[in-house]
Amino acid sequence: MDIQKLQTLSQSVRDNRTFELFVVSIIIVSALLIGAKTYSIPEPWMMLLNVLDVSITVIFLVEILIRFVATADKKRFFHNGWNLFDTIVVVVSLMPIENSETAVIGRLIRIFRVLRMVSVIPELRTLLNSLLRALPQLGYVLLLMFIIYYIYAAIGTTLFENINPTLWGDISISMLTLFRVMTFEDWTDVMYETMAHHPLSWIYYLTFIFLTTFAFLNMVIGIVVNVLEDEHAKERAEQEAADGKVSLDQLAAEIRELKQMLQAQQNNRN
Amino acid sequence: MDIQKLQTLSQSVRDNRTFELFVVSIIIVSALLIGAKTYSIPEPWMMLLNVLDVSITVIFLVEILIRFVATADKKRFFHNGWNLFDTIVVVVSLMPIENSETAVIGRLIRIFRVLRMVSVIPELRTLLNSLLRALPQLGYVLLLMFIIYYIYAAIGTTLFENINPTLWGDISISMLTLFRVMTFEDWTDVMYETMAHHPLSWIYYLTFIFLTTFAFLNMVIGIVVNVLEDEHAKERAEQEAADGKVSLDQLAAEIRELKQMLQAQQNNRN
Amino acid sequence: MDIQKLQTLSQSVRDNRTFELFVVSIIIVSALLIGAKTYSIPEPWMMLLNVLDVSITVIFLVEILIRFVATADKKRFFHNGWNLFDTIVVVVSLMPIENSETAVIGRLIRIFRVLRMVSVIPELRTLLNSLLRALPQLGYVLLLMFIIYYIYAAIGTTLFENINPTLWGDISISMLTLFRVMTFEDWTDVMYETMAHHPLSWIYYLTFIFLTTFAFLNMVIGIVVNVLEDEHAKERAEQEAADGKVSLDQLAAEIRELKQMLQAQQNNRN
Amino acid sequence: MDIQKLQTLSQSVRDNRTFELFVVSIIIVSALLIGAKTYSIPEPWMMLLNVLDVSITVIFLVEILIRFVATADKKRFFHNGWNLFDTIVVVVSLMPIENSETAVIGRLIRIFRVLRMVSVIPELRTLLNSLLRALPQLGYVLLLMFIIYYIYAAIGTTLFENINPTLWGDISISMLTLFRVMTFEDWTDVMYETMAHHPLSWIYYLTFIFLTTFAFLNMVIGIVVNVLEDEHAKERAEQEAADGKVSLDQLAAEIRELKQMLQAQQNNRN
Repeated sequence: MDIQKLQTLSQSVRDNRTFELFVVSIIIVSALLIGAKTYSIPEPWMMLLNVLDVSITVIFLVEILIRFVATADKKRFFHNGWNLFDTIVVVVSLMPIENSETAVIGRLIRIFRVLRMVSVIPELRTLLNSLLRALPQLGYVLLLMFIIYYIYAAIGTTLFENINPTLWGDISISMLTLFRVMTFEDWTDVMYETMAHHPLSWIYYLTFIFLTTFAFLNMVIGIVVNVLEDEHAKERAEQEAADGKVSLDQLAAEIRELKQMLQAQQNNRN
Repeated sequence: MDIQKLQTLSQSVRDNRTFELFVVSIIIVSALLIGAKTYSIPEPWMMLLNVLDVSITVIFLVEILIRFVATADKKRFFHNGWNLFDTIVVVVSLMPIENSETAVIGRLIRIFRVLRMVSVIPELRTLLNSLLRALPQLGYVLLLMFIIYYIYAAIGTTLFENINPTLWGDISISMLTLFRVMTFEDWTDVMYETMAHHPLSWIYYLTFIFLTTFAFLNMVIGIVVNVLEDEHAKERAEQEAADGKVSLDQLAAEIRELKQMLQAQQNNRN
Repeated sequence: MDIQKLQTLSQSVRDNRTFELFVVSIIIVSALLIGAKTYSIPEPWMMLLNVLDVSITVIFLVEILIRFVATADKKRFFHNGWNLFDTIVVVVSLMPIENSETAVIGRLIRIFRVLRMVSVIPELRTLLNSLLRALPQLGYVLLLMFIIYYIYAAIGTTLFENINPTLWGDISISMLTLFRVMTFEDWTDVMYETMAHHPLSWIYYLTFIFLTTFAFLNMVIGIVVNVLEDEHAKERAEQEAADGKVSLDQLAAEIRELKQMLQAQQNNRN
Repeated sequence: MDIQKLQTLSQSVRDNRTFELFVVSIIIVSALLIGAKTYSIPEPWMMLLNVLDVSITVIFLVEILIRFVATADKKRFFHNGWNLFDTIVVVVSLMPIENSETAVIGRLIRIFRVLRMVSVIPELRTLLNSLLRALPQLGYVLLLMFIIYYIYAAIGTTLFENINPTLWGDISISMLTLFRVMTFEDWTDVMYETMAHHPLSWIYYLTFIFLTTFAFLNMVIGIVVNVLEDEHAKERAEQEAADGKVSLDQLAAEIRELKQMLQAQQNNRN
């Protein structure tokens, strides 16, 4: 009975508007804190920041506990990706940091607290979801691009390894170099270097740039068409709902019926 | 009564086509003057330019006074953003410039006179308004992008501060560096430097580039879809106006009525 | 009578398919020749190229004469831009070249012979026309962009002239520097230099990049929407032609007439 | 009869799902092997890789033989581009490699085995086909772009050859330099160098950038419009199929018939 009461209480706290706003402002303070810590700050202020940091961790812990208690089906709590994410961030923040190695990791994990902004603002969550939904459609284009990269990287390593191992040492280094070429970042330096040994190697770079630009364009166009199609489908559905779904076929059928009725009248009279 | 007369006179001057053209040409002369002053000009010509400058200021002052007098409701005059803008530019131009510090500020404010071109040409004002209207739609995408920047800048400062404080000194410097990476400006130099200490830091740059490119693409597509939707809505409205808003549902209802009439005839006769 | 005969003969030559192909191949040879001359070629071959060059000039001269004679209304011949262009290219090619100064100009004009390829292939002419037709629509966006450039260049010259006169010497140099910044070409070098004196000058660059990118995007979207609208209009016109232009309103009117006829029958009978 | 049996057996092997998966996994292993070989690997492992390489070649040979035997019309086997491609890759892999010259070529050809991934995954083959189908539409835009490049390269060589022969030596080098300018890769370095001799040469670069950007934009828009048109056509066809192809014209005709029938009734009665 006590637990039941506690759960109801937690639910009312969790769904309280003021509590929500409080959590959002704590997340913003937490984000500012993370930014502030990157500046060199005098010792006394640094202590204040550390106190703030601990307080935020405690508040986050309490907030998660409230949300956990408020959940009826405890097992499903961690099925929600954001709940799991929040819990991990808080638990890691709680772990004592001693040596400098883990200190860096602790600070890195604390940075991800900023991502809670996304989980708390519904519009951002929607946006992120729509971005993620667009990804799988691109799956095969990305695979094709990876194959292009892989083949060119293998060719590049075979031909240019001896010219500059820093750029063409093995297949993964070559893929990084090719990504650099695709972003046009000092790509002519890379090309002129290999052209000194293989005068025709400009063909390698130009075909690569054409292929990837073309595939990239295709990817962009793919997304645009998909988005527009979704819009069209939505529009058409609305249109049909507004039209009461009467199709021209139904109209034609009704008119044909009318004609048969008139025909019958005619036949009766004669 | 005198004031009433003055107001009517000002209104006729303000709405006069020749006066409008005169103001536009003065604005163009003012723009050319601003450009001319950036060249090194012999002393006597410089004096001519200064005389011109003062004349333009006086003309602008007179023009604003005319517009102010012509306005019926004096209080509402400054509610219009462009009026306020014009007044500030003229008032600042009137202030005596003595020391070199304020001289620069005075010259800077005078440059904004060129913006009067936008306020005077209606097509440009429409264009600017449509650009500004497109901005708020992008609000949440921009917020999401800021969060991505913030998190990556915090990670970058944590990991790379000791490698190169000029690029990763604090969170704001890191954000500037990340913007540079996003524009592909010598981004490999930045990457190779950190890869010397953290060989896996290419993951940091590549994921950042992918995320921001993807979000940017989404933003562009968002604008395109919005613009196209507006066009579609406009088109459909025109179409409906041309169709006299007769829907298929209405047609079906009319046909059904016809059938009932025939049915009634039939029943009457039997 | 003789002139009449000559005109008819010229017309039959001009409209002859073989003659057309011959001219196209001469234009291609001429283009190859222009390319070949940029290589260092041994003396005897060079003489051959010169002979070819003279022959091509003569053939082009003859071709233009034929086209001129074939034209009925001699005055309208030069109203066609391409005819004028061809004549100028041939006349300049005929002028004797003596000193090296004019030699360069003569060689430059000869290069424009390649443009005859566009005038001869109808598809290319159509493409070029559609490209040119798209330009005026962009007029106001280009004007707005020019105003943005002008204002930023004036501000840049005022603030940064003393830091680096090679980049910010006067308003035209500054506009070139800003174009460079817009293409992201070593723009951080430009920025870091001014940030050493004005630490906040990153605001100048970032706002400039945002404004121009945004205006450029708007321009692109403007073209896309225009193109799509043209397509839609074409499509709708085809659709209406296929539908025989029967609108729903017309159908409704016909059904209403039917109802009135039935009503009249009913009244007659009672 | 024996051959007939063999063919049926081969067909059942070829169409077997397990066999397909086996071939796909062999292709993936082959791709990984190609990547692995670019790393420096200790001798004993290298031998293992070589053994694997030979095994893969043998498996590929067997697979092609099975596919060849399974084909009813042997002559048509090589009409399929992918079959021809697979055969060449396997035959070249079989050739003994002795001197280092041919060794590189052998390794290069083996890399193209990765392309078999495309031939084996149907979605990728579809994607590649749609990419290739989009190319010819761009034919004339590409030709126009080539003419722009050719003219600018000829002008560039004429004017700038003496300034920097590495960049402007002959027409093909100049075209490569212009491609570099189009990708904005250190293009200002190229420009500032020639501006030192020809102060107005910025016109050359800016017009080139404008022309190519504009043509490129046009190309992209062309693809987008094409893709969207295809989608529209598909949509409309579906719509019409769903509507049973009753047009408004047909409806109007039916209503007109109704009216005539009523008219006839009326006339009969009077």
